[in-house]
Amino acid sequence: MNIILLSGGSGKRLWPLSNDIRSKQFIKLFKRGESTLGEYESMLQRIFRQIKAAEPDASVTIAASKSQVSAIHNQLGEHVDISVEPCRRDTFAAIALATAYLHNVKGVQAEEAVVVCPVDFYVEEGYFDCVKAMYKEAAQGEKKLVLMGIEPTYPSEKYGYIKPARTDDGGYCYAFTEKPTKEEANKYISAGAFWNSGIFAYKLGYVLEKSRKLLGTSDHALLLSNYSFLKKISFDYAIVEQETSIAMIRYSGAWKDLGTWNTLTEAMEEEIVGEAILSDSCENVHVVNELGIPVLAVGCKNLVISASAEGILVSDKEQSSYIKLYVDSITQPVKFAEKSWGSYRVLDVQEESMVILVTLNPGSKMNYHAHYSRDEVWTAVKGNGTAIVDGLAQMVRIGTVIAMQAGCKHTVIAGEQGLQLIEVQMGKSISVSDKKKYEMPKIYANNQKGFN
Amino acid sequence: MNIILLSGGSGKRLWPLSNDIRSKQFIKLFKRGESTLGEYESMLQRIFRQIKAAEPDASVTIAASKSQVSAIHNQLGEHVDISVEPCRRDTFAAIALATAYLHNVKGVQAEEAVVVCPVDFYVEEGYFDCVKAMYKEAAQGEKKLVLMGIEPTYPSEKYGYIKPARTDDGGYCYAFTEKPTKEEANKYISAGAFWNSGIFAYKLGYVLEKSRKLLGTSDHALLLSNYSFLKKISFDYAIVEQETSIAMIRYSGAWKDLGTWNTLTEAMEEEIVGEAILSDSCENVHVVNELGIPVLAVGCKNLVISASAEGILVSDKEQSSYIKLYVDSITQPVKFAEKSWGSYRVLDVQEESMVILVTLNPGSKMNYHAHYSRDEVWTAVKGNGTAIVDGLAQMVRIGTVIAMQAGCKHTVIAGEQGLQLIEVQMGKSISVSDKKKYEMPKIYANNQKGFN
Repeated sequence: MNIILLSGGSGKRLWPLSNDIRSKQFIKLFKRGESTLGEYESMLQRIFRQIKAAEPDASVTIAASKSQVSAIHNQLGEHVDISVEPCRRDTFAAIALATAYLHNVKGVQAEEAVVVCPVDFYVEEGYFDCVKAMYKEAAQGEKKLVLMGIEPTYPSEKYGYIKPARTDDGGYCYAFTEKPTKEEANKYISAGAFWNSGIFAYKLGYVLEKSRKLLGTSDHALLLSNYSFLKKISFDYAIVEQETSIAMIRYSGAWKDLGTWNTLTEAMEEEIVGEAILSDSCENVHVVNELGIPVLAVGCKNLVISASAEGILVSDKEQSSYIKLYVDSITQPVKFAEKSWGSYRVLDVQEESMVILVTLNPGSKMNYHAHYSRDEVWTAVKGNGTAIVDGLAQMVRIGTVIAMQAGCKHTVIAGEQGLQLIEVQMGKSISVSDKKKYEMPKIYANNQKGFN
Repeated sequence: MNIILLSGGSGKRLWPLSNDIRSKQFIKLFKRGESTLGEYESMLQRIFRQIKAAEPDASVTIAASKSQVSAIHNQLGEHVDISVEPCRRDTFAAIALATAYLHNVKGVQAEEAVVVCPVDFYVEEGYFDCVKAMYKEAAQGEKKLVLMGIEPTYPSEKYGYIKPARTDDGGYCYAFTEKPTKEEANKYISAGAFWNSGIFAYKLGYVLEKSRKLLGTSDHALLLSNYSFLKKISFDYAIVEQETSIAMIRYSGAWKDLGTWNTLTEAMEEEIVGEAILSDSCENVHVVNELGIPVLAVGCKNLVISASAEGILVSDKEQSSYIKLYVDSITQPVKFAEKSWGSYRVLDVQEESMVILVTLNPGSKMNYHAHYSRDEVWTAVKGNGTAIVDGLAQMVRIGTVIAMQAGCKHTVIAGEQGLQLIEVQMGKSISVSDKKKYEMPKIYANNQKGFN
């Protein structure tokens, strides 16, 4: 079974846990399957695990923007297939590019089917039986497009609807309609309509042909090089709404859009993630705390409290869908990020300096790079590794201090225990964009494990 | 006019802004007098400024425990008189010690009067006219003890009451009674009683005599050396309640006990101190944020939100008097403190390391000291200074890195711009008690300005 996981954008609605780099699907908030170790997984990790459990041989491709690649490698490993979007061009371009990636890069035949699935829904295992059924239906090829229909529980104005319809030859099919008014929604529901879940299955050839028609090409390399010029249009609008040959598979289990703090906390199994104390007088309070200091809530009702290196949110749950408006007014550099080699977290920002906790996973390494407007000092506080600075390698142990002037090329390779560094940056204009990558000196390029 | 300012204890009720070292009177929350610079002052600084404005020649002595000395010097300068209590023995011992300090150390005659005044009340300037009147009344010596009476606004069970009474010779005087029940309080109020404000004026000789009677001596050196054995008893209970010769001065202006977050926020002139955004839908919300990251509150009502290196509090205002119970369960080393030389703030705590932002005021210096269970690395990020490490002096500029192994003696003297260091501590058992002070090497002892 071929699956494309659509990894969406914006990180404003779940601030401060999400930011410009970490979208909501990367936040680790869900208890991992059968784990009793108190380990948490992200929506991306959860859905990836659920797919692999339902279909161990599933071939998964993740459609994601360039800025998400590091986080995906961090969470799913280095070997996951990613269809990298150079920029954001809405879902039709993203799906067209990923479909072309499957065809041209992974060699999947045009006659084969694929299911496209967003990663930001919280679903039960039974969901993936429906996904498999959609794949089968699409592979059979009776209809061109297979949708998943969710039984509606109220006349939502937020979802698109899939309505039963008649085909020209008198048979049954479905038609899709975008977000209706409440009145229309009520009519649809009495006529037997379903919510559109945003999952589609089709044969590759179907979208390749639509690509040629709407974007001028279905070639992966061409789509990629012209990506920023592609039409910004949603798959729903460009394809689904125009299609008359639609089949539908029903799903009636848990299906939650975790787009706001309110819906997200409903899906959390515990009131508290991180360090926190709730007084007995608290009611319906959730705390997600990523800082190393305790949160104490006393006498609070219907609140979500969340703290990260980005900031602290205290919001009434029902009003949590309005936080984007205010988060937009907060302008600051990104304070934490997951990288392919580990993660970093800003500990302190002063006018001309910044302190960062850098955590490298065992055996991983940064790019060989230099900064030109800041000096840096590393102090190793945990683990071990090898630093390469201006071509010279040196062992790094707890207590090792390395001072690097602006312009100095450097990297570090974590040993088997991983490595944690306190990085002090100093300069008049500290910016993440002040970074130039270099090729690793040849002598080390083949010995990426350093001294370990 | 002689004044003793009583600097009280516990830091639990205003957590996370107060901690075991910083009691509530040291928190900078009040807009400074006429300052338009957005500068804030603490209760201690405010009351000190108000006294100096009302009576420029007032001779102020602060009665404080040993652990508060650094913070007092930081906030009021090096030259303020402090009667240092080696430990806490309640208010009678503290007032006896401070009175003996005035007599034996400052040479104030037993015939002179003094006013004892707690620092944790928020008052208007007119209050100090009453303080002056109390001083005059005590100096006249008609009654032995002069109290300040606050006109009661409700039958509080929290305050002591001053009731009008008859003297044996048929004249008027006052009697004091400890916290009554609500019913009793109502009776007192109809009989014309006042709240006891906790301010007392007397002639030094009065308390010196009580000291001899109750503590066996009125000698400052003896009281000091036996301080930990002195009776733990309040001044109200030991003296005021027993006294029949009491005069009273009325005060009817603002008088607020700032002991809980609820009363404290009532006295704040602004909803926000520090970085914060309140949505339009917030009502009666106060934010005090000492962290370098923004707080966003959306749709909150009647809340106090406070963040510091110690932790994050979100509390219903009315329930904020109950936070102590929960704060008691939080056990962690102190995360920030004001020292005579500046301040420090913990940025990060890992299992075997800690990162600290150290800020030295211009020209100030730490003690020459060593740690025996941890290594330390300093990286200077702001200002300049001179470090002395195992007897060797070296200049410190932005970017200077000094790595010190356990056992190494060290200090740093800030230059004219002050100095900011990032200190990385590494060791298996990091503790503030792991510190041994040494004498500064003679060669530097007379050149305390270092290279600047």
